[in-house]
Amino acid sequence: MLRPLQTPPPPQLETPPMPVAAGSIAEGLSRRALAAGGQPIGYLMHKALAHPELISLAAGFVDQASLPVDAASLALQTVFADPRRARTALQYGTTPGHMPLREAVLAQLVADDLAAGAPTDAVRDISVEQVVISAGSNQMLHLLADTLLDPGDIVLCAAPTYFVFLGILQNLGVRSVGVATDEGGLIPEALEDALRRLDKAGDLPRVKALYVVSYFDNPASTTTAGDRRGPIVELVKRWSRRTKIRILEDAAYRALRYAGPDLPSLRAFDCEGDTVIHTQTFSKSFAPGIRVGWGILPRELVEPVCDQKGNIDFGSANLNQQLMAAVLEEGLFVPHGDKLREMYRQKQAAMLSAADEFLAPLAGVRWMRPDGGLYVWLQLPEELPAGPSGPLFDAAVEQGVLYVPGEYFYPSEGEPVARNTIRLSFGMQSPERIRLGIEGLARAINSVMA
Amino acid sequence: MLRPLQTPPPPQLETPPMPVAAGSIAEGLSRRALAAGGQPIGYLMHKALAHPELISLAAGFVDQASLPVDAASLALQTVFADPRRARTALQYGTTPGHMPLREAVLAQLVADDLAAGAPTDAVRDISVEQVVISAGSNQMLHLLADTLLDPGDIVLCAAPTYFVFLGILQNLGVRSVGVATDEGGLIPEALEDALRRLDKAGDLPRVKALYVVSYFDNPASTTTAGDRRGPIVELVKRWSRRTKIRILEDAAYRALRYAGPDLPSLRAFDCEGDTVIHTQTFSKSFAPGIRVGWGILPRELVEPVCDQKGNIDFGSANLNQQLMAAVLEEGLFVPHGDKLREMYRQKQAAMLSAADEFLAPLAGVRWMRPDGGLYVWLQLPEELPAGPSGPLFDAAVEQGVLYVPGEYFYPSEGEPVARNTIRLSFGMQSPERIRLGIEGLARAINSVMA
Repeated sequence: MLRPLQTPPPPQLETPPMPVAAGSIAEGLSRRALAAGGQPIGYLMHKALAHPELISLAAGFVDQASLPVDAASLALQTVFADPRRARTALQYGTTPGHMPLREAVLAQLVADDLAAGAPTDAVRDISVEQVVISAGSNQMLHLLADTLLDPGDIVLCAAPTYFVFLGILQNLGVRSVGVATDEGGLIPEALEDALRRLDKAGDLPRVKALYVVSYFDNPASTTTAGDRRGPIVELVKRWSRRTKIRILEDAAYRALRYAGPDLPSLRAFDCEGDTVIHTQTFSKSFAPGIRVGWGILPRELVEPVCDQKGNIDFGSANLNQQLMAAVLEEGLFVPHGDKLREMYRQKQAAMLSAADEFLAPLAGVRWMRPDGGLYVWLQLPEELPAGPSGPLFDAAVEQGVLYVPGEYFYPSEGEPVARNTIRLSFGMQSPERIRLGIEGLARAINSVMA
Repeated sequence: MLRPLQTPPPPQLETPPMPVAAGSIAEGLSRRALAAGGQPIGYLMHKALAHPELISLAAGFVDQASLPVDAASLALQTVFADPRRARTALQYGTTPGHMPLREAVLAQLVADDLAAGAPTDAVRDISVEQVVISAGSNQMLHLLADTLLDPGDIVLCAAPTYFVFLGILQNLGVRSVGVATDEGGLIPEALEDALRRLDKAGDLPRVKALYVVSYFDNPASTTTAGDRRGPIVELVKRWSRRTKIRILEDAAYRALRYAGPDLPSLRAFDCEGDTVIHTQTFSKSFAPGIRVGWGILPRELVEPVCDQKGNIDFGSANLNQQLMAAVLEEGLFVPHGDKLREMYRQKQAAMLSAADEFLAPLAGVRWMRPDGGLYVWLQLPEELPAGPSGPLFDAAVEQGVLYVPGEYFYPSEGEPVARNTIRLSFGMQSPERIRLGIEGLARAINSVMA
């Protein structure tokens, strides 16, 4: 009746103990912990919260005033109005998550992809069993990395891309290899070149995944172009000759589109359903403090991912899942999204027009005009490094502005790191402060270039 | 200004790719994922939820009717009545967690330990910076294991002990070595014997931790005796000659005491504050669906644990932390605890009196009468295995009863596995159903023994 403990014996996991100097910071830490040290994100978030006098164009936080207090409060009232439902929300749930929520997020993907002109029926074939809820999509990305990757494995990534995921890979001892991008996102030819090079070096069997933020990538806000989506999926399938290569499609920013038509997900091009893993979250489209995200997984990964998740936290908080299910049921999600998009559209316009006003006069300073997301990606003259130990970073802080150096967003191998880059976020600040921030940044660039 | 990315180069993490048969379940999974397969807990929880007709004396769930609907609802109203506070609850927080909650849980430990007659001032010296909030204490246990342990390392554990933690260790490729226990919990002399044997075998440098559920251990509901607490801490410090050995003190059940005086935590005996890591949770004492637990860490582990947590989920959901902070502020926690204890006291009495009635007549069947917790640990005649593939498990299901086989609770080495044992939980069922369940179990035992 009960599944017996027929686990395969753990493979050769033995590693020799690592000699460390007594009293050093490293004493008694695991290899993973040593590899995790020094991630910049926590420090940046902390700095932004702790120094409200700085105009932070750094943190990828959502706008504080935009947070859906009324909608969340209404949804919680719905949950607590029914004592039976309230008790379920306060009890342990199952590891993959609350079924009505899983059904709702799957239905949303199918509806969005079909509306966006999905070329195949691939999304219609997804079963709700393939949907697993997580604590934000960040936890799902970590779970997937933990489930798929061993130390020494390789993940191809856009260069630049989401630095938190790069930190996860570093933490796992996994090699990140950067692939060139342009305004249409990841370049399929560059991807094929990278695979060819890795094959030549004998490293192809270690290539386990391609990571793509397919809508408004963090940091450059590029979206994978519509005519590249099919070819990228096809190309990855073709190169899965010896080892299965999976695509981790991070669609966190899909809902934050302010112009242009939506595009079908990469998942919509995966007819066999064995290649693309799609992750999403309510952190950007509703509220990050609720920490509800999810993954839509190939069938064969559902059990391994749930096994890992069961080990880590027993499943995400039932309360938060019931809350989000109620938000969707009560029709509170779409109106909030409309408000959000309108607000961010204005903030983005404020940043772009401030850039036209203050940055355009500076020689060699360029940026893209994205259709969505929370960021503007700035390229400086090549001789002007923007990193934390360079002169510009301190000059910007002196001018009252905090930004994220672009160098953090580069994988550890492959495409060279562009140190003359900056990520500017317009999420948290008012249009007025965005303008002041860009003005201050322009002064800082000017002073350093002088 | 910004901390540069001065991470030490990742140590020799390279592992050769593992050959797997194409198409096998193992294709493309990491070693960790392979080692995680087949944990019984998810299956047991699922079975209990899916078959309400069975009297489940298996799941460690808390009583459904006991869940604090009114208290949680009141606390949420408090949070949402103040729009500024509500917005904070819906925004990202910091990785270590919401400061007022961290202060409150630390104050609770200090008050409890002093009231229980802590022999030293050790708990007074703990700073709030050493408190890190997690998604239940389960996530903190996983984070600590991930931060401290490499494959091949050794953790000493009571035999029997909490099987989910044993699963975490198996997942990490860590060896769990069982130490003998009796009614007073872990036996210090047996612990010293185990250390001596490991030293002789040259394995002492790999011993990184001792895991102790110090109050009403899961499954046997034993509490580490008061006169063993100091000696265990002293002994572990003494054996930390070459490698620092830490004590993971899991105090999840401390609040569920129905008789006898409270005891000071193991943490209270750690004057240097460098040995005992104390974990706790609101899952048993308030509501598991909120998933708020915490760790009180030695100073040098705070940053490494937060680095790991930042990688995994960016910090636990702010909403849930604000909710629990409001529960504590509004004085809703203690009255709920009093209600819970009264309810479980009655259920425990129902189980023990049913055992007296139906199990006492069976030759060779024995159990302990614990002062708290959620479990009764049953020992059967030695020739009667209780495992999932044995005759008793199926006979019990035929009689409408589900239990957890005791063999799951044994570390993989050290103390031999007692297959003639059963964990009975009285948490979820009514006194009437507990009585029926024990009666059914007695019939099953009788039928198999006949």
